[in-house]
Amino acid sequence: MKVTRSDGPLVVAVDTSTTATKAVVVDPVGRVLATGRSDIPLHTPADGFYEHDPRDWWRSTDDAVRAALAELDGVDRSRIAAMCVTPQRQSFGLFRSDGEPIRRGPLWLDSRAAEQVARYGTEAVHRLSGMPPDVTPSLYKMAWLKEHEPEVLAAADKVVGVHSYVTFRLTGEWLDSTATADSLGLFDMERLDFADALLEIAGVSRSQMARLVGAGDVMAEVRADVAQSWGLPGTIPLVAGCGDGQAAALGAGVVQPKEAYLNMGTAIVMGVHSPSYQCGSVYRTDVAGLPGKYVLEAVQNSGAYLAGWFRENLGDPALGGKPDPDLDLQAAAAGIGAAGLIVLPYWNAVQSPHWDPFARGAVVGLTGGQGRGHIYRAILEGLSLETARNLRSMAQDAGTAISEVRVMGGRQRSTLWRQIMTDTIGIPLVACEEAEISALGAAMMAMSVTGAHGDVPDIARCALEMARPGDVSEPNAAAHERYLEIGDIQGGLYAGLKDLFPRLHDYAAKYSQIDPSPLG
Amino acid sequence: MKVTRSDGPLVVAVDTSTTATKAVVVDPVGRVLATGRSDIPLHTPADGFYEHDPRDWWRSTDDAVRAALAELDGVDRSRIAAMCVTPQRQSFGLFRSDGEPIRRGPLWLDSRAAEQVARYGTEAVHRLSGMPPDVTPSLYKMAWLKEHEPEVLAAADKVVGVHSYVTFRLTGEWLDSTATADSLGLFDMERLDFADALLEIAGVSRSQMARLVGAGDVMAEVRADVAQSWGLPGTIPLVAGCGDGQAAALGAGVVQPKEAYLNMGTAIVMGVHSPSYQCGSVYRTDVAGLPGKYVLEAVQNSGAYLAGWFRENLGDPALGGKPDPDLDLQAAAAGIGAAGLIVLPYWNAVQSPHWDPFARGAVVGLTGGQGRGHIYRAILEGLSLETARNLRSMAQDAGTAISEVRVMGGRQRSTLWRQIMTDTIGIPLVACEEAEISALGAAMMAMSVTGAHGDVPDIARCALEMARPGDVSEPNAAAHERYLEIGDIQGGLYAGLKDLFPRLHDYAAKYSQIDPSPLG
Repeated sequence: MKVTRSDGPLVVAVDTSTTATKAVVVDPVGRVLATGRSDIPLHTPADGFYEHDPRDWWRSTDDAVRAALAELDGVDRSRIAAMCVTPQRQSFGLFRSDGEPIRRGPLWLDSRAAEQVARYGTEAVHRLSGMPPDVTPSLYKMAWLKEHEPEVLAAADKVVGVHSYVTFRLTGEWLDSTATADSLGLFDMERLDFADALLEIAGVSRSQMARLVGAGDVMAEVRADVAQSWGLPGTIPLVAGCGDGQAAALGAGVVQPKEAYLNMGTAIVMGVHSPSYQCGSVYRTDVAGLPGKYVLEAVQNSGAYLAGWFRENLGDPALGGKPDPDLDLQAAAAGIGAAGLIVLPYWNAVQSPHWDPFARGAVVGLTGGQGRGHIYRAILEGLSLETARNLRSMAQDAGTAISEVRVMGGRQRSTLWRQIMTDTIGIPLVACEEAEISALGAAMMAMSVTGAHGDVPDIARCALEMARPGDVSEPNAAAHERYLEIGDIQGGLYAGLKDLFPRLHDYAAKYSQIDPSPLG
Repeated sequence: MKVTRSDGPLVVAVDTSTTATKAVVVDPVGRVLATGRSDIPLHTPADGFYEHDPRDWWRSTDDAVRAALAELDGVDRSRIAAMCVTPQRQSFGLFRSDGEPIRRGPLWLDSRAAEQVARYGTEAVHRLSGMPPDVTPSLYKMAWLKEHEPEVLAAADKVVGVHSYVTFRLTGEWLDSTATADSLGLFDMERLDFADALLEIAGVSRSQMARLVGAGDVMAEVRADVAQSWGLPGTIPLVAGCGDGQAAALGAGVVQPKEAYLNMGTAIVMGVHSPSYQCGSVYRTDVAGLPGKYVLEAVQNSGAYLAGWFRENLGDPALGGKPDPDLDLQAAAAGIGAAGLIVLPYWNAVQSPHWDPFARGAVVGLTGGQGRGHIYRAILEGLSLETARNLRSMAQDAGTAISEVRVMGGRQRSTLWRQIMTDTIGIPLVACEEAEISALGAAMMAMSVTGAHGDVPDIARCALEMARPGDVSEPNAAAHERYLEIGDIQGGLYAGLKDLFPRLHDYAAKYSQIDPSPLG
């Protein structure tokens, strides 16, 4: 890649996600000058169990940063002035004091702890932690370990998330950001510190936690040997980052309450900023990347994942799950409401708005006149109807009127799904062209300490200077009315099925095998 | 086909079904000596509308009989001693006195009359007619015509079913059997005659009905010109037949209350004989082919149809809906309960046990760990669980303990589905090898008037002499226990969804186009 030179400092930002770590080098106007990527293997020892080997979090970070920096010449490398990491949230590992993992780390999407959620997930825990009772917060998976592998949990010197582990490998210190540690589900969100009551449920002690640093503050410098191995001559401050969801908000340039962000990724994530701590039933509350702010965030576990699942499992086997233009045409021809077919898109249980770890997917309203295209469309519609409903509820709870939605994620590029989403929500969608939007958000946080946009670090200002909004999709009013109509029916589906879900869960659990889960 | 000669009379039996008319020539020990077949085109002018051109009922009968008789030599043709027709039930036509249809005929599976069912389908109508309120009885479709095409209904000299129309073409007289006319839904079942109250709902008069003959009695002789055109030298008595469901019972040799029959065809139909008129919520009641008896019959609209729908719409497109051994292997590997996936198999609404014309299909319990094989298996299981439940309810209402199920229909040949069905029901299944089982039942009725099995016509005796039971499938006790477990969950699905179905129906109806339905 030929790098266009510009003045000012450069920053390195890293996004350690579920499938890969991405590293970018970004300039003061938000241009990505270099990128690197390294995959992370996913381990699935049993149905609903998802794990990483934590060593891959660091290996992939090292590989990705090295690959990105290799695209720079020596002059540009010398301009690198700061670094920031945005991690997948809730995934965590158990470590010895020297950083060696003693077990594979359960990921955010791991749903093993459904019973612990039922046992410990009270409204009080919700109010304290900002996390509606659900399998994703690490809290319940730590409680699962407390019951199933108590000696392993007790043997860990540190029990920390991805950001803290990568920070340890970068700086030699067990540190964490308030805007990443919060996702463990152990926080008193108003005080921005660990809560004893939650630590006790998890079966961990305060000494097993990392030391907290405010989001956006400099945590420490990158170790000299690491910087040298990357060919970086200077000292590199490491800025305390935020979770990849909050970072995506920044990357999209969303800093005001009237703006929402919407990530049409593997999962669908959407949110708004709030100046004060709020706790509601539809969303979870995160510490924002903007100091002093919170992010109200709704999460739909199954997003583009589900379109991919359909293509892989019920599409044309000859295409092996790849996008299928014929399928899109069939889905378009099926028409709004897919001839009265509705989908409850809870293949991976549901977070917003029901937070039911036992929930499963459903396709309801099947008739002989429907076919593959109807079902595919009903899946895209089901995802979108849930998004529209979640956005409405969240805006109402937060007391804001959303006038614009910044949309990101690979699947916004599907013309069909993006139009369904726009018509369903009924608010203009503004595309964010940058593919690595969370990494861009982390780059904004890193840039704030370089002085490029003012001597006083101001992450919001950096976000406005560095974001790059693109095309606008306008909703069709007539289509929106029909989606309200079919959405009113689809919205009643969960109530009709929720009592069956725990019974299906129990049946499946009774007759499934669980493999042990070693480090491998 | 080389015909094996044997002594005694031969009979011609005709089965006029939804897709084709089949004719067979049968000897006194139940051997099928010759067969003929002629397809009937299906017309679908709108979603849920299914029609035949009634002229095809006669044309296909004429073609099929001609084809079967062409396989015989002159000596065997001279042995033909009687004829009987078993028709698809509930399908009807509107005719001028000379037999010309004035409209295409709505079929049994046509679901246009859902609103009329809601309006007229009282418990009193059920008790009188033996037909639970549902779209299949002709009654409600006549009421639909009364509202939408009153002048067409009034202009008809005769409003009759398939058996009566074919009888008119065979004999020149508008006659019908009590065991076929009953399916119009206009009968007082205890009196075996049309009921004025029901005729009034349908908007038809007694003069528009055919004259009734008792099932098994000789109605008239086949017209000389028709017999001659087929190369039949003698006079051929036409025996009053019974509906194809009741005829299948006879064809399977089912004549005692402890025996049930199960047709794993496009629809799944099962039943038992009852010595007296019974009326229950799960089954409908038919006039039996055995004089003086009734058949309690449960009907699942979607049977093998649904397996075919899945393969055509969600299977490998390269196979074009044909059986897929890989899919069967995947379904077998999915295990009992398909990892907690359940199906409500109401793609074509539901008759037994809910009789809900608005019901639709549902697939519930989807997770990312499931795939094509799980869904296919869950469909086969859903069909089987409903069958097991319907059989249990029917046996209970009829006060009989079923000790053997005679099974027929193309799909009993699927090893996978037949084993699922056997394990689900928990009672041995005895296969009926004869493909044209309803036609064989009609042949038994025809044979009863030939004297081959005694001078006094005895259809039950003919059935025992002519039926040919085959292989036995034994249920696996452990599998049966697991099916009871998953069936208990699946049995709760309808209750959770039934209130949504009318809303989905209304939505789909609001945005679908209905084409006019001329004779074409």
